[in-house]
Amino acid sequence: MRMVDVIDTKRNGGALSPEQIDYFVTGYTNGEIPDYQASALLMAIWFNGMNAEETQRLTMDMLHSGDQLDLSDIPGIKVDKHSTGGVGDKVSIPLAPLVASLGIVVPMISGRGLGHTGGTLDKLEAIPGFQVEIEEDAFKKQLREVGCIIAGATGNIAPADKKIYALRDVTDTVSSIPLIAGSIMSKKIASGTDALVMDVKTGAGAFMKTDEEAEELARTLVEIGKGVGMNAMAVISDMNQPLGKAIGNALEIQESIEVLKGKGPEDLVNLVLTIGSQMVVMAKKADSLEEARTMLQANIDNGKALETFRKMIEAQGGNGDVVDDYTLMPQAKYKIAFTAPSSGVISRMKADEMGIASMMLGGGRAAKDDELDYAVGLMLDKKVGDRVEEGESILTIYSDRENVDDIVKLIGDNITISEEAEPIKLIHQVIM
Amino acid sequence: MRMVDVIDTKRNGGALSPEQIDYFVTGYTNGEIPDYQASALLMAIWFNGMNAEETQRLTMDMLHSGDQLDLSDIPGIKVDKHSTGGVGDKVSIPLAPLVASLGIVVPMISGRGLGHTGGTLDKLEAIPGFQVEIEEDAFKKQLREVGCIIAGATGNIAPADKKIYALRDVTDTVSSIPLIAGSIMSKKIASGTDALVMDVKTGAGAFMKTDEEAEELARTLVEIGKGVGMNAMAVISDMNQPLGKAIGNALEIQESIEVLKGKGPEDLVNLVLTIGSQMVVMAKKADSLEEARTMLQANIDNGKALETFRKMIEAQGGNGDVVDDYTLMPQAKYKIAFTAPSSGVISRMKADEMGIASMMLGGGRAAKDDELDYAVGLMLDKKVGDRVEEGESILTIYSDRENVDDIVKLIGDNITISEEAEPIKLIHQVIM
Repeated sequence: MRMVDVIDTKRNGGALSPEQIDYFVTGYTNGEIPDYQASALLMAIWFNGMNAEETQRLTMDMLHSGDQLDLSDIPGIKVDKHSTGGVGDKVSIPLAPLVASLGIVVPMISGRGLGHTGGTLDKLEAIPGFQVEIEEDAFKKQLREVGCIIAGATGNIAPADKKIYALRDVTDTVSSIPLIAGSIMSKKIASGTDALVMDVKTGAGAFMKTDEEAEELARTLVEIGKGVGMNAMAVISDMNQPLGKAIGNALEIQESIEVLKGKGPEDLVNLVLTIGSQMVVMAKKADSLEEARTMLQANIDNGKALETFRKMIEAQGGNGDVVDDYTLMPQAKYKIAFTAPSSGVISRMKADEMGIASMMLGGGRAAKDDELDYAVGLMLDKKVGDRVEEGESILTIYSDRENVDDIVKLIGDNITISEEAEPIKLIHQVIM
Repeated sequence: MRMVDVIDTKRNGGALSPEQIDYFVTGYTNGEIPDYQASALLMAIWFNGMNAEETQRLTMDMLHSGDQLDLSDIPGIKVDKHSTGGVGDKVSIPLAPLVASLGIVVPMISGRGLGHTGGTLDKLEAIPGFQVEIEEDAFKKQLREVGCIIAGATGNIAPADKKIYALRDVTDTVSSIPLIAGSIMSKKIASGTDALVMDVKTGAGAFMKTDEEAEELARTLVEIGKGVGMNAMAVISDMNQPLGKAIGNALEIQESIEVLKGKGPEDLVNLVLTIGSQMVVMAKKADSLEEARTMLQANIDNGKALETFRKMIEAQGGNGDVVDDYTLMPQAKYKIAFTAPSSGVISRMKADEMGIASMMLGGGRAAKDDELDYAVGLMLDKKVGDRVEEGESILTIYSDRENVDDIVKLIGDNITISEEAEPIKLIHQVIM
């Protein structure tokens, strides 16, 4: 087989055979196929796509390029959740202990942030002492004892995906639905979960800008999962404005704890309960979504969910007292209000630009090696649809530098105050 | 500027700015832009094309990456001819001395063959002693004294094109009209000619399989030429069956000499005179194509054209007696007739497969470093439209090996004998 013929098949709009996909993934991973031929194929895939069989094969080949976590010796149905990433999206953090508090095993393999979206692991590291690199034995021990864990990948998970993703990043071939789906699912299948709820974000702050694209990605993800016998489903949720009110690492941990105390912002709580209910039903702990939601709400109200989070933090080396005292986390030197220049209704608060503002404050990474400032970020006082009077605070900038003119300018350019606002619907669709 | 943004512009269907094209050509040539980003851009260009301004800029950037031949100190209008390549296409060889015999300066920079098409330089090397690597001074001296030369590029012509072409070859991005046009024209402009006739081949044995594609390439080539003040035009000619009757290096030299003796096959003679007439008019030696054709025919009939070829051969170190004695060139050991399996009219004789048959005999290169056998090839006794009786010879295989079963099989699979045949029209269109 010659790589140039594999490229030719895809360039001309054909479907790659299983043998051609195996040849590409194996040959590229072991270095026999050079980067320049791989990038030509990836660009041809960007243009001509992949059908369900090709995407499934690509996923399985990337999966089999590395290790798989075997969780079969842990009793119960393992349920995980994955988000395609958004601004202020801290759903995983309250969700894992909340669902685990009902006796469900939640093994979450998570990642770090880059660009305008934060990473779950980064946020958790705002908690003093919290460890995200956990060896396999400790990983399983924590699942047995606490019921949930949020950690980075252990072992050599999908090295083919790592290499292909690095190439996509520098060749403008990231935004291809089959390639995105293969990358996500190869890692999720490797993590050994039985069931998976995917939160596919749509809108200005998401990778998928339209509902059509988000739905296509969601259906592809679910299809791949079902293809390997995983109970998979997806929720398509809005990412035009930030999720919740907190953006920034320590601020998002604080807001996650507030959710577990029953005091979280409405949209975030709604999404946590929506996804959580699906997970409870998938784990066969409830017969209906309504029943599941009631059970989850009860464990917020009785403190069990918060207690599970405290245990999870402590199991991972962190200071569990953080759930009672947020000042144990890094605190920003300056809190600067961004006030409304006129009265009216907030009709736009662009999610990606709010994420970039937090990144520019030091809360996110512009480049892979950037160090994070856990204290900084934004705390929204108003959201889209809220009425605001001239001079009233729309959000508070948490900063470790005094001059935030650049941040104020960026925020000002991306918030619109109008006579009225189109309401934003949080949950667009559920794909099963 | 970042290469990933240049890729993004083209991937999304936009036009690259002059600065983006300069950045790519300069950066890729000097090694700052890696192969894998260049190949992603080339594939995006394959899908989304380039407009006239982009193609012109690419061409000029590749031109300026290297040396240019300055022929301004040689009196008269310099006229060159270029073919996109076909099987049995030896037009340049009789054409250069024929046109030069009228006092026109013909500086031809030519190439070697790869795959199913032969190369003009390879064919000329079938003549004992013939040199194709000529230094600039000797190149100009020959133009002054003989009026024509066919040689390889001198100096460092379009190194950017060399590097980009090598990458296109292994990334399945050769067949892009703007990239083909830029590659051809950067080298042709560098060769210092004032006027240029391009022979764009169309059909089964050509790179452009349809007339539409051939016309698009021809118009692009002519447009680029005119953009730099070159008098450029194109002829679109048929390449469904081989051109002329000889395929193979020494056999094609023999047939070229036959053309200059007034005994060439009809289609080849017709194409040589058609292109030659255009060159004579471009050189302002005749007012009309009819007048030019009469002048060319006269120099065939009076032997001046053949004499010019003899002088050209001798000026380039070859044995000029070859024009009288073809046995001075390598001779094949075996001549094996391929006979008609049934009676009828030949309706198909696929050009590319006939070229591959010659290559398999040793007359062409499957890989760049293959050595050539100058003696071997095919000599057609019949062409499409000719009547043939069962057992009569359709062509003769010239071979240095006795067993040619593989060749016979390939030829048999690619010749069809029917009740009747669609006539093949040689000249499809003239683009000026």
